[in-house]
Amino acid sequence: MFGFGKNKISTDSYKGVRDFYPEDQSIQNYIFDIMKKTVESWGYEEYNASILEPLDLYKLKTSEEIINEQIYSFKDRGDRSVALRPEMTPTVARMVAKRMQELSFPIRWYSIPNLFRYEKPQRGRLREHWQLNVDIFGVSEFNADVEVIQIASQIMKNFGSKPEDFQIKINSRSLMDDLFKKIGIPDSNKSELLRLIDKKEKISEDNFRNSIKDLIGEDKTTSLFENLYYGEGIFSMLGTLESAKYIRNVIQTLRDRGVSNIVFSGTLTRGFDYYTGVVFEVFDTNPENPRSLFGGGRYDNLIELFSNRKVPAFGFGMGDVTIKDFLTTHNLLPSKKSTTDLYICIAPETNIEEVYNIASNFREQNLNVVVDISGKKLAEQLKSLDKRNIPFVTTIGSAELENGKFAIRNTKTRQEFLGNVLENIEFIRSNNQ
Amino acid sequence: MFGFGKNKISTDSYKGVRDFYPEDQSIQNYIFDIMKKTVESWGYEEYNASILEPLDLYKLKTSEEIINEQIYSFKDRGDRSVALRPEMTPTVARMVAKRMQELSFPIRWYSIPNLFRYEKPQRGRLREHWQLNVDIFGVSEFNADVEVIQIASQIMKNFGSKPEDFQIKINSRSLMDDLFKKIGIPDSNKSELLRLIDKKEKISEDNFRNSIKDLIGEDKTTSLFENLYYGEGIFSMLGTLESAKYIRNVIQTLRDRGVSNIVFSGTLTRGFDYYTGVVFEVFDTNPENPRSLFGGGRYDNLIELFSNRKVPAFGFGMGDVTIKDFLTTHNLLPSKKSTTDLYICIAPETNIEEVYNIASNFREQNLNVVVDISGKKLAEQLKSLDKRNIPFVTTIGSAELENGKFAIRNTKTRQEFLGNVLENIEFIRSNNQ
Repeated sequence: MFGFGKNKISTDSYKGVRDFYPEDQSIQNYIFDIMKKTVESWGYEEYNASILEPLDLYKLKTSEEIINEQIYSFKDRGDRSVALRPEMTPTVARMVAKRMQELSFPIRWYSIPNLFRYEKPQRGRLREHWQLNVDIFGVSEFNADVEVIQIASQIMKNFGSKPEDFQIKINSRSLMDDLFKKIGIPDSNKSELLRLIDKKEKISEDNFRNSIKDLIGEDKTTSLFENLYYGEGIFSMLGTLESAKYIRNVIQTLRDRGVSNIVFSGTLTRGFDYYTGVVFEVFDTNPENPRSLFGGGRYDNLIELFSNRKVPAFGFGMGDVTIKDFLTTHNLLPSKKSTTDLYICIAPETNIEEVYNIASNFREQNLNVVVDISGKKLAEQLKSLDKRNIPFVTTIGSAELENGKFAIRNTKTRQEFLGNVLENIEFIRSNNQ
Repeated sequence: MFGFGKNKISTDSYKGVRDFYPEDQSIQNYIFDIMKKTVESWGYEEYNASILEPLDLYKLKTSEEIINEQIYSFKDRGDRSVALRPEMTPTVARMVAKRMQELSFPIRWYSIPNLFRYEKPQRGRLREHWQLNVDIFGVSEFNADVEVIQIASQIMKNFGSKPEDFQIKINSRSLMDDLFKKIGIPDSNKSELLRLIDKKEKISEDNFRNSIKDLIGEDKTTSLFENLYYGEGIFSMLGTLESAKYIRNVIQTLRDRGVSNIVFSGTLTRGFDYYTGVVFEVFDTNPENPRSLFGGGRYDNLIELFSNRKVPAFGFGMGDVTIKDFLTTHNLLPSKKSTTDLYICIAPETNIEEVYNIASNFREQNLNVVVDISGKKLAEQLKSLDKRNIPFVTTIGSAELENGKFAIRNTKTRQEFLGNVLENIEFIRSNNQ
């Protein structure tokens, strides 16, 4: 039954996913904490669901590429088709639709689910990643768009990044619709055209123009390109239309609220088919690596795929892999901080029970304490502290137990303090940050 | 591409898994917070890994039932056999083995992963559950067993349960080995016998005795039963053996540390094959439902399935479903507390930007604030607060913006306070608990 013998089991994880050792998890926790604190300060409430969903949930709406090439799916033992969720939006839409009658709108929800896509693992793209999802349901007015984009910007600021470190590009599907109508692009070409425009940054200017020309012809392409590159001038061309007023209002309100790094981008379309209004995407401004960090938009027609009621929605998804890369590149990750406050080494022939009793005193005062029960020599006990970033250490032996006093050392400053339990607790409290 | 029309997509989640609406997630967060705070106060560090593991990880060691009947597995697009982890221990063993050279032992790790088993969904058993895993690696002495069992007990206490609400049963695989040797049970019967003994609580006394008699015969069964039911008297029979001294020491030290509800149980064996020493299991003492809550034990031979080095280990797993049931039955779940502190309603024809500005002031002081941007009538805005348990509410209109003062109401006590932003922040601070 046991696998003893020469053939050891591989210690490799599954391809394209990550093991989180404590030093990795502490970075994840830092990132998740900033995300959570920011969105909760805006009154968003956490929800969650299983990573397993019925495969049918994705058949009707997600972009085709994901369904056909990237979804993890299998049949369970009861012959049900199951998927590992590739994104959270269909799940949250399902959950909102299910409790439509009981929920009092508007609702503000967030979650940090893990998601799976079968991709060739590469920088910034893994098979599993975690993604903050922030959504507001039940508000069709532009205030919802503004609030959610402002939150996205606030999270970036709370990570310590400056407005010049990132740029928020914004566009509107309704505006694109109006533009397409003005130019005379047939409805049948619309989806494909949006997809081609979305690929702009990934291909050469020539290829880009040619691919569009093949679809809609030379004249319309010229007309389209004049508008796409017009920047915010597009507003004066389409100025009387609701779609132009709307997005102009979103941009202006965000600027008034201090989101200075937002710019209109006529070529921003976002991949998913379900967007219906404003879409936005946040980019790293680093010229060496001006990649997309995350984005979102308005999707007013998704809930009615599940329900007879229409519920307007606006949200975004922010992935941990790209954000961690961004924070690393911009030197914004804090140095690792241990969750442990004090490490107690034990001198030879000391009554361990008395040391455990002292540790309990610290714990009752909400300090986190390790007692070294390795039975190793003192030098080795101290060595096991290496790289753990625990801020305080002490050694307790029979003499210390007798005196009731022991010396606490700050592992960074090397400052020492001699005191009884209460004094030591106070010392740690006032010197720990 | 979109699924418009009459055929709506089902809002059901996959069978046997749960959706966590904010009120459910707030309970999960409460449970996870108590777990995390307790284990971190003992210096345990969080790790994590992907839910996907190579299927081979489970082929050699987990109990056969799980592999054959309950594991979720499939082939990925690259023809790799992948599993959704059914338990965390193989993963953590793999991770420890992989970094064997760099880690400084002893290491104390914890995680709260979700796990999958293909089971018939029923009370206390779902296809997906979350499970706190707490493990110490690198200490073979009994101090590790004592520490980890004490932590298990401490978590129960931190949930508010009293010693009489639960009982910790403890046994030792080494002691069983010695007992089996004394009675003359052949090694070939050992695994099967442990499995039969483990089923004791699930079958009738007659069936239990007969199933064992069929395996080892009448005489040995009589002899075994005399010992199994001897309680701690077994120690005096096997008193000179190391295995008996060891577990007696564990029990006595735990009692000395205040874990009063620990008892020896000769019939406790635990299902997994990998246990090598002390095993323990925590039971609800409710006579109407004396079910097992969680358990763990020593597994000193697991790491060497991956590595040439042997690393002693002791740990337990505590599932969210059973713990939540226990807390509900014993009335220990706190009433739902919103993560939002203040809900701001907006009177008609008010400048929303100024209200958002006030909300920012609260947020800068670490208070969590919702601004109602529904555009609904005031009565409806207030109604949307129902069941949300947000502790404070205010309504801001032009008059309030002009005066710079507005009334904050405590939604529980109905107490009202009129003040400017700073005064209101202070009021919320001192009245929020």
